[in-house]
Amino acid sequence: MTIIKTSAKPKLKNPILIEGLPGVGNIGRVAVGYLIKELNAKKFAHLYSEHFFPFVMLQEEYQLHLLKNEFYYWKAKKKGQRDIIFLVGDCQSLSPHGHYEVIEKILDFVEKFGVKEIFTIGGLATGEVEKKPETLGSVTDKKLLKKYKKYNIKFTAGEKVGYIVGAAGLLLGLGKERGMEGICLLGETSGFPIVTDPKSAEVVLNTLTKILKLDVDMSKLEQRVKEMERFIKKIEELQRKAIMEITKEEKAPVKGKEQLRYIG
Amino acid sequence: MTIIKTSAKPKLKNPILIEGLPGVGNIGRVAVGYLIKELNAKKFAHLYSEHFFPFVMLQEEYQLHLLKNEFYYWKAKKKGQRDIIFLVGDCQSLSPHGHYEVIEKILDFVEKFGVKEIFTIGGLATGEVEKKPETLGSVTDKKLLKKYKKYNIKFTAGEKVGYIVGAAGLLLGLGKERGMEGICLLGETSGFPIVTDPKSAEVVLNTLTKILKLDVDMSKLEQRVKEMERFIKKIEELQRKAIMEITKEEKAPVKGKEQLRYIG
Amino acid sequence: MTIIKTSAKPKLKNPILIEGLPGVGNIGRVAVGYLIKELNAKKFAHLYSEHFFPFVMLQEEYQLHLLKNEFYYWKAKKKGQRDIIFLVGDCQSLSPHGHYEVIEKILDFVEKFGVKEIFTIGGLATGEVEKKPETLGSVTDKKLLKKYKKYNIKFTAGEKVGYIVGAAGLLLGLGKERGMEGICLLGETSGFPIVTDPKSAEVVLNTLTKILKLDVDMSKLEQRVKEMERFIKKIEELQRKAIMEITKEEKAPVKGKEQLRYIG
Amino acid sequence: MTIIKTSAKPKLKNPILIEGLPGVGNIGRVAVGYLIKELNAKKFAHLYSEHFFPFVMLQEEYQLHLLKNEFYYWKAKKKGQRDIIFLVGDCQSLSPHGHYEVIEKILDFVEKFGVKEIFTIGGLATGEVEKKPETLGSVTDKKLLKKYKKYNIKFTAGEKVGYIVGAAGLLLGLGKERGMEGICLLGETSGFPIVTDPKSAEVVLNTLTKILKLDVDMSKLEQRVKEMERFIKKIEELQRKAIMEITKEEKAPVKGKEQLRYIG
Repeated sequence: MTIIKTSAKPKLKNPILIEGLPGVGNIGRVAVGYLIKELNAKKFAHLYSEHFFPFVMLQEEYQLHLLKNEFYYWKAKKKGQRDIIFLVGDCQSLSPHGHYEVIEKILDFVEKFGVKEIFTIGGLATGEVEKKPETLGSVTDKKLLKKYKKYNIKFTAGEKVGYIVGAAGLLLGLGKERGMEGICLLGETSGFPIVTDPKSAEVVLNTLTKILKLDVDMSKLEQRVKEMERFIKKIEELQRKAIMEITKEEKAPVKGKEQLRYIG
Repeated sequence: MTIIKTSAKPKLKNPILIEGLPGVGNIGRVAVGYLIKELNAKKFAHLYSEHFFPFVMLQEEYQLHLLKNEFYYWKAKKKGQRDIIFLVGDCQSLSPHGHYEVIEKILDFVEKFGVKEIFTIGGLATGEVEKKPETLGSVTDKKLLKKYKKYNIKFTAGEKVGYIVGAAGLLLGLGKERGMEGICLLGETSGFPIVTDPKSAEVVLNTLTKILKLDVDMSKLEQRVKEMERFIKKIEELQRKAIMEITKEEKAPVKGKEQLRYIG
Repeated sequence: MTIIKTSAKPKLKNPILIEGLPGVGNIGRVAVGYLIKELNAKKFAHLYSEHFFPFVMLQEEYQLHLLKNEFYYWKAKKKGQRDIIFLVGDCQSLSPHGHYEVIEKILDFVEKFGVKEIFTIGGLATGEVEKKPETLGSVTDKKLLKKYKKYNIKFTAGEKVGYIVGAAGLLLGLGKERGMEGICLLGETSGFPIVTDPKSAEVVLNTLTKILKLDVDMSKLEQRVKEMERFIKKIEELQRKAIMEITKEEKAPVKGKEQLRYIG
Repeated sequence: MTIIKTSAKPKLKNPILIEGLPGVGNIGRVAVGYLIKELNAKKFAHLYSEHFFPFVMLQEEYQLHLLKNEFYYWKAKKKGQRDIIFLVGDCQSLSPHGHYEVIEKILDFVEKFGVKEIFTIGGLATGEVEKKPETLGSVTDKKLLKKYKKYNIKFTAGEKVGYIVGAAGLLLGLGKERGMEGICLLGETSGFPIVTDPKSAEVVLNTLTKILKLDVDMSKLEQRVKEMERFIKKIEELQRKAIMEITKEEKAPVKGKEQLRYIG
């Protein structure tokens, strides 16, 4: 059960998809969240799935909130820009096969709007404090190297790390099977402990806005990250707690000295 | 495989759903179980699922009992009351995605009877002994705050805990996606060790009966909890044992000094 | 994917189902395996499933063998006897929900042959060496107590243990949902370490043959158990090894001092 | 979701299937990979599945690569040879039931090309350094023993190990259910630590080429193994890392001294 519900049907012209779901350093989440706010993009659909955590969040102390991924759109304002569909959300799948199922649903959905190009944003955990984080890239096809070379993207991710887990990787991998192409932009970040890294997010955001010719005021990023961080920390803490609960339930010991009698 | 079987088709007028499945302190289970008994509600359907534990219970020493969730109905007796569907049962889902699947089935089912409003009952584990437990609340929509304010419900659950796991949360979260609204009532309870907390259940029950204008004699609650507790403890113990069995099976070591030879 | 393939379509009159899949002490497997041999029952169908272990066994040193459950039939020879479908096999499901799925398939299958009554055979692990093991019973309906009382079955399983895991329990629990009825016969056995317990199997077999008015020579049981034990031990060992392999694969540590770099 | 995409529809005459997916010692992968290269077999289809790891690999530092299994074909050049479909790939299934699902898809696919005979290649981990590794065999049917006796295959795998995990076993086990027959060829290898064993691969390759009357120059094997090993080591390392990530996520502790408050 993975369901997408639409609240509006925007007419988009040759749109691109930009993904920023939670992940290492929350680079994608912060960068795409900021873009949505600054560009005043409009929400038009949301997705929920049995592959997400089996709980609801409490927002503003009293309101129940189902875990979701959300779709926003933005229409090009001037020449050289492209219509955009943004994908953000509370979480990714809990189970390995859930990733494939949810991402196929997302691709089915955006394909109908004519998406043929995908940008995914993630963090690359280097295990070291990154004083001058850079943007690394990985593409679906060799020919894209030339296209993106001028944006100062380091195409050495394969050397530093060998794989991209979850939506940032599979949207491109599975998208390519449908004839889509794209790039994964990765901001270098320490990756441990898992905290939101606004500096790395800014670096990736700079790369992305240059590529897409977007006029975005970066001055509010730091403030926005602080606002977002509260929510992000909360959901991460909840997921940790929920996992502990689930695990505890699964591993609860038999109390007392009861003999273990069982039948089979 | 999640199946609902009906034994009667009651005609209900704008009914509400009240859920009380097993959970923290068994607040919901005890409170709703008591209501069913005192109101003499009638069983009309039951649900079983591949997402429940793969065992049958033994009742009264000799009788096999498939794990189930059960639906009861009660018709309003006087003005100001509402028809009610009660949901109680032996257990919730074993797997995370099972929660979503079972709850969607339940919503499909009650939606046919016209349910548009849901009350879920749970416990909030505070980690402390609660001498004067209170009722906390969480709603699907801000406008419900006003409606429920007068019932002395504390809308601070989000501050104390960030999420609601399982049916108590997902019935409301997924129900909202169908245009249903509702409230989750939570009784404060220590939560550790996991025991049935009749005092907390009574507090929530008082809140619930006031909201629903139900005339329920509370004097038998203590006695009823004692009766129910035997069954509840048994099933909890069984689940712990079963988990141990399953885990043991999955982790059984190779005996002796056999070399590990394998093929792939 | 759970598939049943039939090699013959016997015409059976009001048959009963007798299940003896692997479990505690292998009571069911040994008892039902012996009955099949002694009664010269005929194989007419087999089942395999994605819920079984993902390996094939090697038989007689060189032959590949897919894990299976098998159906045999036997026709009543004299008055008072009933036609019988036997269910035996190499294993039960690996996952909790797999149990429900496989057992529903089995019930679908035997229902077509008119099965309305089920006997399941299992072991009750007491945790103690059982010098004089007895047959315990558990039924789907109170009225069956009277029917089976005279066979010296102790209906106290609920007191000693609270549940019956897997096919021995779920065939009856899920069968009851289809209007079938039946009894689970359990032989007391130590249960630890998990070994085949021929003495307990014989006790249950004696009870079963009395109920069903079957003429079975018990003198070869000990010899047969020895023969079966080799195969049974082998498959148990394989399952332990396979679990270790699967677990090892899932828990393999990163070698060396490589830094953990990852992307999300 | 397990999908096979074809890029060509070769007309094959009574082809055999030869499988060499990753496994113990990577015997199958190396042997079949070398055959494909030396015979200049043509790729005509690939498979991807939700049962594979939820990540994409990075190849040549910058290119995203979805995990896949691939099909190649080769047409017989002279009398006594047979048309061949080769199956190789990056990985096998992550979950037990995934093995069954993926392998059934593969069998559906090759059955359409008329495959009735299967060769699977694997390694048998002996736990010892194998100075003179030999080829062991296991067949779907006793009658094949005679056919393959002359090739110096030891049919004693059942004695050394009891089962064959994954594709090498299930392709034959599930294939037999469709009337296919075949042999699993296993090269003896230490199996610990998991490294590619070119010597054992060569031994199995010699057996296979004799059976199939293939003219293959073995002189480049060592060089090819070195080339392949880099890729194989990478994907193995990635899988280990990914498993650690997944595990870490599932087991992340709650930081600080927060009290565990939860609701249910």
